[in-house]
Amino acid sequence: MASSNYSDHFSIKNLPYGVASSSTRAGPQCVTRLSNTVIFLDDLQRNGVFNSVTELPSGIFKPSTLNDFAALPKTIHTQVRHALQLALQNGVEGLPTGSTADISEVQMHLPVSIPAYTDFCSSKAHNINAGRAILGHESLPPCFYHIPIAYNGRASTISVSGTPVHRPRGHFVDRTVTTHKEVIYAPTRALDYELELGIVIGAPLPLGQGLTAKDAEAHIFGLVLLNDWSARDIQGFEMIPLGPLNGKNFGSTISPWIVTLEALEAFRTDGPEPQSASVPPYLQDSGAYNYDIQLKVELETSSGARTVLGETNAKELYWSLGQMCAHLTSTGCNLHTGEILGTGTVSGAAEGSYGCLLEVTKGGKVKAKLADDDERTYLVDGDVVTMTAWAGEGVGFGECTGQILPAKEVRA
Amino acid sequence: MASSNYSDHFSIKNLPYGVASSSTRAGPQCVTRLSNTVIFLDDLQRNGVFNSVTELPSGIFKPSTLNDFAALPKTIHTQVRHALQLALQNGVEGLPTGSTADISEVQMHLPVSIPAYTDFCSSKAHNINAGRAILGHESLPPCFYHIPIAYNGRASTISVSGTPVHRPRGHFVDRTVTTHKEVIYAPTRALDYELELGIVIGAPLPLGQGLTAKDAEAHIFGLVLLNDWSARDIQGFEMIPLGPLNGKNFGSTISPWIVTLEALEAFRTDGPEPQSASVPPYLQDSGAYNYDIQLKVELETSSGARTVLGETNAKELYWSLGQMCAHLTSTGCNLHTGEILGTGTVSGAAEGSYGCLLEVTKGGKVKAKLADDDERTYLVDGDVVTMTAWAGEGVGFGECTGQILPAKEVRA
Repeated sequence: MASSNYSDHFSIKNLPYGVASSSTRAGPQCVTRLSNTVIFLDDLQRNGVFNSVTELPSGIFKPSTLNDFAALPKTIHTQVRHALQLALQNGVEGLPTGSTADISEVQMHLPVSIPAYTDFCSSKAHNINAGRAILGHESLPPCFYHIPIAYNGRASTISVSGTPVHRPRGHFVDRTVTTHKEVIYAPTRALDYELELGIVIGAPLPLGQGLTAKDAEAHIFGLVLLNDWSARDIQGFEMIPLGPLNGKNFGSTISPWIVTLEALEAFRTDGPEPQSASVPPYLQDSGAYNYDIQLKVELETSSGARTVLGETNAKELYWSLGQMCAHLTSTGCNLHTGEILGTGTVSGAAEGSYGCLLEVTKGGKVKAKLADDDERTYLVDGDVVTMTAWAGEGVGFGECTGQILPAKEVRA
Repeated sequence: MASSNYSDHFSIKNLPYGVASSSTRAGPQCVTRLSNTVIFLDDLQRNGVFNSVTELPSGIFKPSTLNDFAALPKTIHTQVRHALQLALQNGVEGLPTGSTADISEVQMHLPVSIPAYTDFCSSKAHNINAGRAILGHESLPPCFYHIPIAYNGRASTISVSGTPVHRPRGHFVDRTVTTHKEVIYAPTRALDYELELGIVIGAPLPLGQGLTAKDAEAHIFGLVLLNDWSARDIQGFEMIPLGPLNGKNFGSTISPWIVTLEALEAFRTDGPEPQSASVPPYLQDSGAYNYDIQLKVELETSSGARTVLGETNAKELYWSLGQMCAHLTSTGCNLHTGEILGTGTVSGAAEGSYGCLLEVTKGGKVKAKLADDDERTYLVDGDVVTMTAWAGEGVGFGECTGQILPAKEVRA
């Protein structure tokens, strides 16, 4: 059952979209949330709440994913938002009987079917911190100031918050053997989280069309919290020269609520620093192109102690959401509704603002102290990692959480 | 319209699967091919040809993709193959009226909906040749003998043979500027093909289950020809440290016919060399784990002249089909029906056996001579690249072809 701890994240200014099921319904359906009340949108549509939105197809909220709705033009999303805010101006009291459920009574599901997953690396501080942790000196990837760097991730293993993740097995160099380089296949010894936001694509973009950074937000349905779980030893062994694969493909987790850009409009802010003058016109963004969204990652150990391991802000991202979409499509590559573009780990420059353990522990060399006097280099079985995000004034993302379970005996 | 030049590829020993439409039918449907005759399988099913296959769902060949059929267990595929061979033992004469069409009268479509695309790099010679072309000396990726290396590709831009490909724009270092390092955004100047086979996944594999290399073929529906078009300058600029993205995401092309492993069974052969003793049990393969499939890539210029640029063989692959599937799933990663695993460029060690222009031209340093006395470093607009594959005895793949069109004005 879903968490009720985030009622202040979901004011009438937010109205995010998700997919929920309850024991009283046949299957998962599209919902929104006000405080701790989950509202089934098909019930509202059948009762005329969206009658003013003439172009809204009937039954659009009935499917078990939001893809059909997300694919509609922004103008329709905006009208639906206004109709919802009107219907909810006095709270949920006047809503049709049976159209609501308490958050504790529903189960949340993946909000969209995800046809592709591209993970960027758009935080300058993360690049610097991770480079220092791995290479021992300050460095940035050679193309960092020219393009938002990214790799294709594995879409099929993205699950919704609350889904546990089994420690993956993989190939890596056994650091306990010091006499020679011993490669083993074993459960990872360097399991990490990555604190990210995920862009959820709404209106699709056909092949060969391209986008400017400034126009790209018309194709962004909203944002989710994203934990790009990473096995650092497996990743480190495999990634020369083609990048990460098995170090990441065992699972990623997203929050159940997609917060729309309309809800985040009030939290626009400037980028952290001027960008290179050589960025080509299609990729240039200007004005308040970033979003002021506070991000936090917490670790709960089996003792029940909770430790905040990092607090940062999405406004630190060097490349904007629009720039990431524009770069991915700059070859003519298409975009499909529901696909996710991760920002990459969001980190700040200072201690305490790191978005992954690789940074916190300087590549596993410095242990992180926990609230119960325990310590960590990387995650141990039983650990629960919870990410939250808060824009302000009643607009938050709830949480994205997952517990590490022991490695499974595969191929038994 | 599809090519009739490959009638000898499609004997009764082959019977590949594809998806075709014709002017006399409402939409694309699942088909097989005997010589130059395309056979609509739903017509055969409705006329009782598969009545002996008790577990075959009715209407399974009616959809516009093969995914539903491909997802069935191998035992059913084998029974369908036997029923087809029985029905076709005297050719196509006795087939139901209207169930066939000449190959020249149909249009071929993508045979499957492709939910994921992973591209391996399993040819040792390609790794060595490409390394020499780029780095100037012989080298292999550090993990080459331990695991089949791969990256996640872009599934959404895979198209069927015959679809033209626009030259992509991207960011790269302008080699015409010698005084300093000038990064530009422009149409690629190093457009290349990659001669590959693609594994098409049949029966899906759930998350967390894993596969051994020896068991993996039960999940392989069949093979296609695959051209992983690559923009070498864009790829070279972007791939440190996260691997290729925009250098590849503008398009890949597959052949319309999926040749089943049953049809290829007669062409099994040993791997090219013994593998490292330290390969863990799940990843070990033994016996005749490779397939003897001759591959050829030809370039046709606008003058009409055709030049064979490479002839090689899939038996050269260091890692087997089963090993690639086993590695990808060794973290617990799932497999979905219709997803494609590319072998990576298939090359031999000798001149004339290279699977991409990067190798043929030593990284663009040596021009390839063409039949019409023209020459190439990389592809020019108007070039047509055609790949073919032939196992022997009436079993071939037909062709995988595509023409390069000029860069499109995007974001007009």
